[in-house]
Amino acid sequence: MTDIHPNQPAAGQTSRHTLHLDRLHASLSDPAMTSMNFLNEVAIRFPDAISFAAGRPTEEFFDVADVHRYLDVFIDHLRRERAMTLEEARRIVLQYGRTKGIIHDLVARQLAVDEDIHVPHESVVVTVGCQEAMFLVLRALRSTPQDIVLAVSPTYVGLAGAARLVDMPVWPVQGGEHGVDLQDLRTQVKAARQAGLRPRALYIIPDVANPTGISLDVDTRQELLRVATAEDLLILEDNAYGIFTGDQRLPSLKTLDPDRRVVRLGSFAKTVLPGARVGYVVADQDVQDLEGGVTLLADHLSTIKSMLTVNTSPLAQAVVGGALLTHGHSLLTANRRERDLYERNLSLMRAGLARHFAPFADRVSWNTPAGGFFLTLTVPFEADDALLERSADKYGVLWTPMSHFYSGDGGSRQIRLSFSQGTPESIDTGLERLASFFADCC
Amino acid sequence: MTDIHPNQPAAGQTSRHTLHLDRLHASLSDPAMTSMNFLNEVAIRFPDAISFAAGRPTEEFFDVADVHRYLDVFIDHLRRERAMTLEEARRIVLQYGRTKGIIHDLVARQLAVDEDIHVPHESVVVTVGCQEAMFLVLRALRSTPQDIVLAVSPTYVGLAGAARLVDMPVWPVQGGEHGVDLQDLRTQVKAARQAGLRPRALYIIPDVANPTGISLDVDTRQELLRVATAEDLLILEDNAYGIFTGDQRLPSLKTLDPDRRVVRLGSFAKTVLPGARVGYVVADQDVQDLEGGVTLLADHLSTIKSMLTVNTSPLAQAVVGGALLTHGHSLLTANRRERDLYERNLSLMRAGLARHFAPFADRVSWNTPAGGFFLTLTVPFEADDALLERSADKYGVLWTPMSHFYSGDGGSRQIRLSFSQGTPESIDTGLERLASFFADCC
Repeated sequence: MTDIHPNQPAAGQTSRHTLHLDRLHASLSDPAMTSMNFLNEVAIRFPDAISFAAGRPTEEFFDVADVHRYLDVFIDHLRRERAMTLEEARRIVLQYGRTKGIIHDLVARQLAVDEDIHVPHESVVVTVGCQEAMFLVLRALRSTPQDIVLAVSPTYVGLAGAARLVDMPVWPVQGGEHGVDLQDLRTQVKAARQAGLRPRALYIIPDVANPTGISLDVDTRQELLRVATAEDLLILEDNAYGIFTGDQRLPSLKTLDPDRRVVRLGSFAKTVLPGARVGYVVADQDVQDLEGGVTLLADHLSTIKSMLTVNTSPLAQAVVGGALLTHGHSLLTANRRERDLYERNLSLMRAGLARHFAPFADRVSWNTPAGGFFLTLTVPFEADDALLERSADKYGVLWTPMSHFYSGDGGSRQIRLSFSQGTPESIDTGLERLASFFADCC
Repeated sequence: MTDIHPNQPAAGQTSRHTLHLDRLHASLSDPAMTSMNFLNEVAIRFPDAISFAAGRPTEEFFDVADVHRYLDVFIDHLRRERAMTLEEARRIVLQYGRTKGIIHDLVARQLAVDEDIHVPHESVVVTVGCQEAMFLVLRALRSTPQDIVLAVSPTYVGLAGAARLVDMPVWPVQGGEHGVDLQDLRTQVKAARQAGLRPRALYIIPDVANPTGISLDVDTRQELLRVATAEDLLILEDNAYGIFTGDQRLPSLKTLDPDRRVVRLGSFAKTVLPGARVGYVVADQDVQDLEGGVTLLADHLSTIKSMLTVNTSPLAQAVVGGALLTHGHSLLTANRRERDLYERNLSLMRAGLARHFAPFADRVSWNTPAGGFFLTLTVPFEADDALLERSADKYGVLWTPMSHFYSGDGGSRQIRLSFSQGTPESIDTGLERLASFFADCC
């Protein structure tokens, strides 16, 4: 009897309150959100399956000692470079802080060093991962029920999720083999306007995209920027994988951006540490108010952030800042080992696919990404959730049905394969299992 | 010439893109948001003024060594208590993680130890501070344009900010001298329903509230819960200051909650470390879907969180978790020094007010909070932003006009005084300056 507490009514007192799903926000009844849960559940239910599903960075070089070291490096930086007392440095890292972040200057410097992007420090807002960055931009742009965001299809699911939270429709634009079909972009903008809608921006991952692994060539990048200006669109450039493109790195959209049409969304999850949950948005666009005053779009995103998360954990920022300082503000330098590993895994994937899938050469094909975490497998059958479950259960191998990245139809005969976390042995065994599974399906 | 970059057009090429504020979300043109900026700006413009304005915790016991220690304590806990390998423990803290958090069990245990609240671990969602917790709940509840949230007035500005982001009106309920006017609550619910609206929840801080310092007595707490059941409302209980109430601690609303009407919003910013940005929401309510399936409200908040911030920095959570483990899961124990300091400061404030304000005893009064960070000063003049600016500039003392915490009129002759950060000397000098300023105004 001693474990009956005031908030646990005794038997008989069943006045326990129940809410109803149809009176909660529509995002919670969205089948797309349920489908992502399904993917996570399958991974949990079959923990011994070899996974080509998760898009997580390698854990091979994780080291808690790095976290301790980076934190100390950042505090040392505050004291030496910014001439702070220990008390002041402690306040920066441990107290409530600046909404736009405490490593905005280091982020701007990294963009200059690695990507030849030159933006004012004040245009950087440090966010709780790239996901919060997407939400801030979409929340700012969705001011009427007419505002929509365009997205190259298939689309990273996080964009669709953030849009769902502000009730903003995502209007698909064909990606095709080259990453974006510019003719379709023009067509869709026109169609949306004829439907009375206001297309505000296009979301795109120009380098080794999630989920396809496709990169835009330089001409397409230039032409895309011209279309953005002609059609009065912002470009939301997500560049989570840009430094994992081997020696063939191309200028990012923000590097080429002559008219400040590009809002850059960034993440340190793949390049420093997922556990820090630190990302950023660069928004150097001017915003004019009714009195003619001009502010940076970044300042308005900061206002939204102040109502959403107040600020990004300064402690987590300090760890990321310490990593940037340790590696001369270069993520390319910081990720030498990781880049080698991902390149090796991509080579192993391609060689393994060629070897194990030789019997299906006439029916199965795959693309050849310049790097990144993912490649696309095109198959002669409907690769749906039921088939994934069978693959996991009977063959011990996980993958992602590409259809999850389409808002409507599409991708039903494609599979996303991730290679960021495998070892040579797991990749070989995983592809062998996948081939056995295909032998059953094909 | 070498510093001309592709994204910096040469002079003459002035095609630079400009957005317009009236095409961005309405929250960005909200005067309430601008007013908070004003308060921050005044603090920055007069850095030498003594501040009774900021609601930040004391920095006296900040120590970076604690951060290192807590992180190691948490990893050690994973290895010993949860029998993880070093590799597994590293993955928990450094990799992408569980959306609902990695210290949910420790949070549930803290609530049991300190507050006699007993909830399933699965009902806890660890959030990016209490601010994200508020957003998650309001986003879930705002499913139609009819859904509104009630809030005891004056209201913590973070609630109004989060509501603004989901376009949810905040409908004020009189707080009065006892923390909530239950008759007015019933009246307002009725009025809202007659206006075709759906009041979904009441937001309240029952213990030493921000901004007033007022606490609800036990009878009022019990009666409030009965009204919530009768009127079919959720109670959003924000309890950021509950452990800073001396020896007269009263049961929280969640402790008394017989029908699971209370959603608890929590923060570790004041009790562990602001720089971690870790808070939580306890949502043990059932949600029934159209097929009759039942899930926890916490699971739906987790779905929203997955689209907003994905997860709360596991690294920051580990630091908070380590602190909880170090102090036997008790924030009361963890904050012995801090509680003594805040109690001392409150005594100093009361004594200092009595001494310095004796000349105005017939015109100025103040309340006597049981603890917390704030008290309310009632004055015989309009304490507005212009007067604050004069106080900062001419007298070197900062405070907060209470009107900032009201959505409409109200609080024009009240001032919020914060005492969480002062020393005996600064409190005395600050009150002396405030009295000089009053001598000018009164």
